Amino acid sequence: MEALQIKKALEYRKLIDVLLDSNLFADIVLQGGYFINVITREIYEADVAIKGEHVLMVGDVKDLIGPKTRIEEIRGKFVSPGFIDSHMHFESAMLTCTEFSKLSIPTGTTTLIGDPHEIGNVLGVAGMKEMIEEAKTLPNRILFTVPCAVPDAPGLETSGFDVTAKDMKNLLTDPYVQGIGEIQSFSNIKPVYEHAPELIDDLVAAVSYANAIGKTVEGNAPGLFGRELAAHIISGGTHVSCHETTTKEETVEKLRYGVSVFMREGSSQRNMAECIRAITEEGLDSRRAIVVSDDMVPADLLKYGHMNDIIRRTIAEGIDPVEAIQMATINPATHFGFKDVGVIAPGKRADIAVISDLMNMTIDQVYLAGKKVAEKGELTIEIPSYIYPESVKKSVKRKPVKKDELTVKASGSRAKVRAIEAIPFQNLTGGSKFTLNVKDGIVQPCLKQDVLPLLVIERHGRTGKIGKTFLQGFDLKSGAIAESVAHDTHNIIVTGTNYEDMVTAVNRVIAMDGGIAMIKDGKVVGDLPLRIGGLMTDELTGKEMSEKVDELSRLAKEVLGCGMEVPFMHLSFWSLVTSPKWKITDKGLIDVDKFEVIPTIL
Amino acid sequence: MEALQIKKALEYRKLIDVLLDSNLFADIVLQGGYFINVITREIYEADVAIKGEHVLMVGDVKDLIGPKTRIEEIRGKFVSPGFIDSHMHFESAMLTCTEFSKLSIPTGTTTLIGDPHEIGNVLGVAGMKEMIEEAKTLPNRILFTVPCAVPDAPGLETSGFDVTAKDMKNLLTDPYVQGIGEIQSFSNIKPVYEHAPELIDDLVAAVSYANAIGKTVEGNAPGLFGRELAAHIISGGTHVSCHETTTKEETVEKLRYGVSVFMREGSSQRNMAECIRAITEEGLDSRRAIVVSDDMVPADLLKYGHMNDIIRRTIAEGIDPVEAIQMATINPATHFGFKDVGVIAPGKRADIAVISDLMNMTIDQVYLAGKKVAEKGELTIEIPSYIYPESVKKSVKRKPVKKDELTVKASGSRAKVRAIEAIPFQNLTGGSKFTLNVKDGIVQPCLKQDVLPLLVIERHGRTGKIGKTFLQGFDLKSGAIAESVAHDTHNIIVTGTNYEDMVTAVNRVIAMDGGIAMIKDGKVVGDLPLRIGGLMTDELTGKEMSEKVDELSRLAKEVLGCGMEVPFMHLSFWSLVTSPKWKITDKGLIDVDKFEVIPTIL
Repeated sequence: MEALQIKKALEYRKLIDVLLDSNLFADIVLQGGYFINVITREIYEADVAIKGEHVLMVGDVKDLIGPKTRIEEIRGKFVSPGFIDSHMHFESAMLTCTEFSKLSIPTGTTTLIGDPHEIGNVLGVAGMKEMIEEAKTLPNRILFTVPCAVPDAPGLETSGFDVTAKDMKNLLTDPYVQGIGEIQSFSNIKPVYEHAPELIDDLVAAVSYANAIGKTVEGNAPGLFGRELAAHIISGGTHVSCHETTTKEETVEKLRYGVSVFMREGSSQRNMAECIRAITEEGLDSRRAIVVSDDMVPADLLKYGHMNDIIRRTIAEGIDPVEAIQMATINPATHFGFKDVGVIAPGKRADIAVISDLMNMTIDQVYLAGKKVAEKGELTIEIPSYIYPESVKKSVKRKPVKKDELTVKASGSRAKVRAIEAIPFQNLTGGSKFTLNVKDGIVQPCLKQDVLPLLVIERHGRTGKIGKTFLQGFDLKSGAIAESVAHDTHNIIVTGTNYEDMVTAVNRVIAMDGGIAMIKDGKVVGDLPLRIGGLMTDELTGKEMSEKVDELSRLAKEVLGCGMEVPFMHLSFWSLVTSPKWKITDKGLIDVDKFEVIPTIL
Repeated sequence: MEALQIKKALEYRKLIDVLLDSNLFADIVLQGGYFINVITREIYEADVAIKGEHVLMVGDVKDLIGPKTRIEEIRGKFVSPGFIDSHMHFESAMLTCTEFSKLSIPTGTTTLIGDPHEIGNVLGVAGMKEMIEEAKTLPNRILFTVPCAVPDAPGLETSGFDVTAKDMKNLLTDPYVQGIGEIQSFSNIKPVYEHAPELIDDLVAAVSYANAIGKTVEGNAPGLFGRELAAHIISGGTHVSCHETTTKEETVEKLRYGVSVFMREGSSQRNMAECIRAITEEGLDSRRAIVVSDDMVPADLLKYGHMNDIIRRTIAEGIDPVEAIQMATINPATHFGFKDVGVIAPGKRADIAVISDLMNMTIDQVYLAGKKVAEKGELTIEIPSYIYPESVKKSVKRKPVKKDELTVKASGSRAKVRAIEAIPFQNLTGGSKFTLNVKDGIVQPCLKQDVLPLLVIERHGRTGKIGKTFLQGFDLKSGAIAESVAHDTHNIIVTGTNYEDMVTAVNRVIAMDGGIAMIKDGKVVGDLPLRIGGLMTDELTGKEMSEKVDELSRLAKEVLGCGMEVPFMHLSFWSLVTSPKWKITDKGLIDVDKFEVIPTIL
């Protein structure tokens, strides 16, 4: 029994007193609004009485109004449960949970399910625990779904630490850990089954343990149907989600198979409009349809909002507003088994969004555990900055590199090479062969064919290896870009039009203890230190980060002539070995479907 | 970690192999049927492949058919998840779980949530554990929701054992215990709050502990609205059901408040038709609408069926068949947090009902954990009888009574007395005053006014007390009826037209170690030994019990001239102190609303 559970019992006891003793009263009453009931899918006029952290009652609450009760007059406005983002990565915003929350709370999002697998890849269990410790300091509800397999593809990449079934007890028994996060290692199911069957035993062990202690497991099944989908679902313990569903056909199949489809609509990937057609066109029961962000960048949080914006988009696709709100409240609460949030009803935690314009999802007020924390888009409480310990800020364990380490070598005057082909706004890539010049035994970049060296430098102090290949289609005209954000193991990834700038860029990242660096002619064009695991910073607010990223994007375009939008994000995904076709890791060029390293030089 | 959880992991691992290895195949394929998808609320053609105890896959499964796969051709039939009865008492059928299951399984009901509070009142934790041990031997899924407050009203009645928060760890940690059952002690919430507030602390403690270890809590809130309903919900930890809802208005209020409304449609009380109007007329989201039996007598199981009959009735009220089936499958599974039953999907337990006529809910085949167990209404497996240990068969701890103990005494020649007024087919009663003759200091029964003595004799060996009052409206012409089934503490209740037969009837019940006895002119007209806790028997099958009860009812009418239908059931409820107005216990006449003993003789 946790102390917090006992505290809740004491609070419940107090609520019972207020309800049954005519001399006791509510603390706050939200009066005169339209109540959005996500259980019955209705809207009707009803007042909401709050006592302490909890909802006392909804309906005619005038007997609960005493001399000290604060009345919030909200005539014409709508009262909704606070929104739940069921799958998101704080690391995608490169911000602390604190700075992310400061942007997210005023938009009506009151519960976040963070997946810390990025920091887990760099810093292992200890790194994830630091993030969990931060979350505990915050007024919004933050729970984590943790990876059970780090790295995703052992043997094909090197993470800072390994996480396996052996770590599950340590991680999953933390009350802030909801369960196991996206089981990516098994999304590419056929190759894993054929080439690394030992991963499956480890996965089933971790999942079974999680379920046995009442924790949940999230899936990750892009493009899977039929037998492979069934095997994926079973590997996740049968009650899983998928946030990588991109077509209506996939959505229908997954819902029919019992998967909670997390329709993604974040900053980097937008799949909701396609997925939602399973509901709007096929009329399927939407109880397992859930909307999530996955990745949100600060600029979008500031400009459009968070879950309120995703709900707005969902309404725009033809879903009734209350049904759309169900997809961010009761549906996820049911999926995760949350008993105290996701609905507004007696005894529930008073996490509430007051909405002034339902179709536009304009958030007027936000309550967290009965306390008003935001009004008209601004926080009304102080949330102090959170500074991470130095222990997580020394994650780049690599001495500066020299040019000779980075160059791709070949004999003769021309070399036939494999290159990863970039596809804008997608994690997946193509792959093709090109012929490049060789000078002094070094394969040269070729701007004409838009083929540049693409390297991953192990930076966790484990193997020291450097994987080398080429990249086609980045449209970089000069200089180099390096970063320590490189999914999922987050070694240093670098590309450039010349090896000298690439060396400087990598060494700049190393010198900053992680981050993003753009170099041209040996000089720093722009950089962003990300000292927390090489992924995030506690030195910038959301607004500052937004401005910084805008500036770096502008510099990439204007100074380096990069034709690809959001170049840092794209670069970071070309090392992700859980999505096809070819990817680069510290072990070399990876054929994802074959689940093996293949040579770059032919 | 339970061994069964590890076993499931091993089975999952095998399923993954079958799905991904083209040389492995399903054990059984249900081929050519219409698949009822309770997740998406659809019906479509799809085959179902089963391996071992689990569903492998649904859809096009022809690749999973190998040389040894058994094909079940079910063209034109419908495949549904097996049904869940979310709230039922085995004791109501007076049968063992085994004999009950033999009648229930062929009707497509595969999961039973039994509430053993009757045996708990007589035999305490040990008695409930004996019932749980029996359930573990059966092929259907049986889980229990156990009481946290026995007796319901301490101070007003005497049970065989007390169950309180102190017993929760012992009970709730059993994996066959789903959680806390109907919190009856708090359904009569205002009087309890005013007269026995100490019960509330005990209840909140028990409930909080249950929730903290992941167990559920069921409510019981007849007639509660607004503040009282809110207080009841909070006392149950906020995620509760109610199976005592009887009106549309109540159903709407409870659904809006987040209660799972268990619409009751069993042998003794039928509320579904009224409750379902919240869905059919008001169009509320039905995800928390659930149908249950509460009490089923063997005759009805044999004649009409079990959950299939309740679903049939629900369809008849205008609910779409798939939505009606949701109310007995996915809706209860979601309420209880069951992850492996309630839907047919990859990896779920293959608990399946094959239906030949959807509107009539005619059950063609039943599968339990992948094994065909019934066909065309008949069991196709052997389920051996279960014999309870002698320890539970000596629960009547009382020596024979003498006439002087039972007579109601008064001075003078006439006495003004209070009498409970019977209301046919209701638990609740009226109460009024009558004038009766007194002869030799003994108040005489009066057939003219239909006012008879009504007594409860403590039989648990604790107080030895006898509570005495009168009963109006039973319409008994001669003799006496006594029984050891007397809700909820199950002391011996007796009424009769003369004290001599009442003495004989009570002593017959004592001599049988519990049961029902009808006496006329000192002779046994009929009896039914119920040796398990004085409530049930392991000596009769369902069919035999059905015939026995029919015979006793006939004898009551023909020989004793009793005008009230099902007299034993009615008699057993006049001691239930959780429903108004007046009731009789071993402590005397109880004014339920005042929560106190009141005098019978004025």
